[in-house]
Order: sequence, then C-alpha cells, then structure tokens
Amino acid sequence: MALLDKITEKILQQIDGSGFQQKGAYNLRHNGVALCHGDSEHIKIKKKEDKPGIDIYIDGNTRGEQVHIPVVVDASGMKDEVYNDFYIDAGADVTIIAGCGIHNSGCNESRHDGIHSFHVGKGANVRYEEKHYGEGEGTGARVLNPVTKIYMKEDAVFTLDTVQIKGVDSTVRETEVEMGANSKLFVIEKLMTHDSQNAESNMEIQMNGDGSSAQIISRSVAKGQSRQVFHPKAVGNAKCHAHVQCDSIIMDHAEVASIPEINARHLDAAIIHEAAIGRINDEQLVKLRTLGMTAEEAEGIIIDNFLN
Amino acid sequence: MALLDKITEKILQQIDGSGFQQKGAYNLRHNGVALCHGDSEHIKIKKKEDKPGIDIYIDGNTRGEQVHIPVVVDASGMKDEVYNDFYIDAGADVTIIAGCGIHNSGCNESRHDGIHSFHVGKGANVRYEEKHYGEGEGTGARVLNPVTKIYMKEDAVFTLDTVQIKGVDSTVRETEVEMGANSKLFVIEKLMTHDSQNAESNMEIQMNGDGSSAQIISRSVAKGQSRQVFHPKAVGNAKCHAHVQCDSIIMDHAEVASIPEINARHLDAAIIHEAAIGRINDEQLVKLRTLGMTAEEAEGIIIDNFLN
Repeated sequence: MALLDKITEKILQQIDGSGFQQKGAYNLRHNGVALCHGDSEHIKIKKKEDKPGIDIYIDGNTRGEQVHIPVVVDASGMKDEVYNDFYIDAGADVTIIAGCGIHNSGCNESRHDGIHSFHVGKGANVRYEEKHYGEGEGTGARVLNPVTKIYMKEDAVFTLDTVQIKGVDSTVRETEVEMGANSKLFVIEKLMTHDSQNAESNMEIQMNGDGSSAQIISRSVAKGQSRQVFHPKAVGNAKCHAHVQCDSIIMDHAEVASIPEINARHLDAAIIHEAAIGRINDEQLVKLRTLGMTAEEAEGIIIDNFLN
Repeated sequence: MALLDKITEKILQQIDGSGFQQKGAYNLRHNGVALCHGDSEHIKIKKKEDKPGIDIYIDGNTRGEQVHIPVVVDASGMKDEVYNDFYIDAGADVTIIAGCGIHNSGCNESRHDGIHSFHVGKGANVRYEEKHYGEGEGTGARVLNPVTKIYMKEDAVFTLDTVQIKGVDSTVRETEVEMGANSKLFVIEKLMTHDSQNAESNMEIQMNGDGSSAQIISRSVAKGQSRQVFHPKAVGNAKCHAHVQCDSIIMDHAEVASIPEINARHLDAAIIHEAAIGRINDEQLVKLRTLGMTAEEAEGIIIDNFLN
C-alpha cells in the first residue's frame, strides 16, 4: 500500500465522495504519475505506451463494481495532461469515480487536462462521477479543462454526474456524446464559481439512433465577479427525445450566459430546452432569516439545496 | 387616388389585414417607388433626400391612429432596398402596418430589404405589424431580408407582431432592441416555410433600464425540405425580466435549429427561455380525423391554430 501525504488525503476526501481505498480497480495519479494502481477480476487498468494515461477494460460480467481514478496535483506550476480510455463491454454494470483536485501553494498556474473517452457496449450501464476542486494559499491559478467523449452502442445507459465544487479559477469543459438506438443519457452538471473565476461548458449530444433519449440538467451558482457560459447542444438525427434544462443563480456582480442549441433534423425528433437565470429566491431568504439565520447562513442553505 | 392593378391589390389583401386604403397617413411603395402617399393631422411622411425610403413623424397627440406603409414588388429581378425611420413622440399611441409582398413571375430573383428604425419616445405606445408574403409562377426566388431596430425611451411600450405567411424562398431577419427604464416589449413572431425555403431570424434585446421587461414568443412551422434557424438573444444589464419562448413544428424532411442566448449581467436580471421542437401532436390528428377530416385537412387546422 502506497503511503499518502496529508494534502493528498484531504483532496481525495473532497473529490472521491465514496471514499478512496487502495483496493479493487483503482488508479491514483499524483503530479503526473501513477502513485498506485490495482486491478480486479473484471476490470483491468493498463498504462498507455504512447502517451500519458491509462486504458481501462471493463468486461461484460462486471456487476455493480466501482473503479476509482482520482487525480491530485499539488506541485505549483505543473501542467498535467492525461488520456484515459474506457472500454466497457456489452452488458457491464459499473460506476466510475473520477475527479481532480489541485492544491496550489505557489505563484505559478497549475493545470490538469483530463481527456476521457468512453466506448460503451450494447446494453451496458455506466455511471461516471467526476468532482473538480481547487485549494491552496498560493496566487497561482488552478485550471481544469476536462474533455469527455462518450460513444454509446444500442441500449446503453450512461449517467454523467459532474460537479465543480469550488476553487477552480478557470475551466473549459467539452463534452461530446454519440448515441445509438434506444440508448439513454442522463447528465447532471453542477457548477459553482466565485471571485474572478471563469467557467465555460460546451456540450454536444448527437442522437443518431432511433429510440435514443437524453436528459441534461445543469445547475450553477455564480458569485463574486465570476463568469459562466453554457453552450449545450442537442441534435436529433433520428426518432428521439431530449430535454435540456439549465438553471443558474447569480449573486454579487457575477454574469451568466446560457446559449443552448436544439436542432431537430428528423420528423420524429422531439427536443425541449428550458433555461432560467435569476437571483436567489427572496421569499426563501426571508423565511430562513425569520427562523433566526444570518443572511449568509440562509444563502448558504438555499445554494446547497439548489446544487444538491 | 392612384389606380392599383390587380396583382398589387391582391398582394395588399395578403399583407395588410386591416385593409389598405388611400386615406390618413399611408405610403405605398411599388417596385422601388412611392406610388401614392398621404399625411394626417398628427402623422407626416417625408421622402428621404439621401437614400431610398421615408421618415415618418408621429406627434405626441396621436391617439389610436394607423399608418399603412405596404411594399409590393412584382418586377422579376428587382432588388429593392429601403430605409424607413420612425420618430414617435412621447405619449403617442399608434399602430404601424407594414408588410411586403413579392409577386415573381420571371426567372430572376426578386428581393426586398426593408431597414426600419423606431425611435420611441417616453411613454409612447407603438404596435408594429409586419406581414411577409411571396407568390408567382416564375422560377425566380423571392427574398426578404428585414432589419428592425427599436430604441425605447422610458415607459415606452412596443409590440412587434411579425408574420411570414408563405412563399418566401429566403429570409434573414435581424431585430435589435434597446430598452430604457420601465419600457415593455412584446414580440410575436410567426413563420412558415415550405419546399426548399430557408429562414433565419436573429434577435437581440438589450434591457438597459431598470424595470424593463420583454416577452418574446416565436412560433414556426417547417414543411418540405425547408430549414429554419432561430437565434434570439436577451441581455439583462439592469433590474429587468424577460421570457423567451420558441416553439416549432417540423414536418416532412424539414430541419429547425433554435439557438437562444440568455445573458444576465445584473444581480436583479431574471431571464427565462423555453424552446420546443417536435412533430404535430398525433392525438390531435387522430381526433380530427375521426371527425371525418382527411390527414391534410386535419394538419391544416392544427397548424393554423398553432400559428394563430
């Protein structure tokens, strides 16, 4: 068992809610190298030969198993780029717990770009959880630019649960999904920015197979002078349906722009989009404050509820 | 009184629902020239000296009056560009009935670009109706590219009611609105395309004044191989609220893309967007057909209801 330092352990608690342990299938990347890794009977992790990253093979007999692949960057000035490819066989049922935490105590930018691709076999059921988090007393920026590519065969089910907790100064998120017949996609994106942070999230869902369906829920809170831009795009190329919902709360001097695109290219494509941007519900604030809370406490509770 | 030919009269019936008459304030533009025009006590129309078009002065004592400014193009191969500027004094209450119809019996493209600007005084109430229509047995395209710029002073109310009836092969619509304090904007856009027609509608609403509000409703039907793209943008720079709703029905092999943008740049800006694209409601179709209608009749009734 590899021994982990205090900073790494603290960050793992933030980004791996299920509790990171060195057992089963796992891979802990620390400052650009695999600190420890393990396989299980059904899940094999192989280091890539040609570039940084791993290939994860999940066989069709996997049932309810978890794979943990957290990333910790605590060297200031580090730029870490990693390519992780998941090959999920037909019929597998798996939960993948990723996430990246940056601790920056220096004055240089620390950055992690995780490029993940998921090849999801027929009828497989994948849950992918990803938490992003930044901390550290340094002035150096904490930058996270995830790219997520999902290729779904027929009858596959994919749940993407992604959270930016706090402390990420700049993020550009790119998500691309191609959906086969009768496949189902669920996306839950939660994002919080504060101070002068910037966040951009681009998402493109191509519904290519008859009977495919997608539900995208995005919730965000922008505080301070932070800025957020959302650009979800849902394209219906077959008999399909999609529902995209983006809700944002703005506070202080923050700015949020939501630029969804829905595109029906097939007679039987049905696509709905809803977006709302506004301030915290005043009635809720008043109600909580009459219960004796301060304005900050009341705001905190409303925001926690909104993001959870 | 100017004598009008049969084609012009027929087109006027399509584009001027209130009934065009040569009385009160009016200006009929025909193949690039003013065929007839008149002023009223409160509304004066002046021909521009420097470019094609007219200036329309509406004084503050105008109460419930109509101005009719239809455009008819029936010369094949004609490209008509016109600049119409409206100066609406504080407190005026007026309905402006515009519209353009193209009859193209030749093989060359006929095109009308109407660039309209509205300077709306404090507390004025303006209703602007615009109908677009194309017809003619020729193979030449019928093209309409309207530009509408609206500048609203405080407490102004502007209703933009715009309809593309049918027969327009290509249209690019640009609408820009700047809103002062407590001003109110209502937009109703209805658009029907068929065959290989293309339609693009870009709209940008800048809510600059506290208390401003905007309601935008867009409804469209795309038949045949036609394509439509909608890009409404609502920007909240002050305490304001906006509601943008786009609903489209696709038929046959048509394609519709809706790319709204909502952007909150102020803590007290509240902006909501909703969009839906889908095929005709099957239950309604079945219900109407059990009443003895053919599929075409039933579709026609559903579409008429949707667009009215």
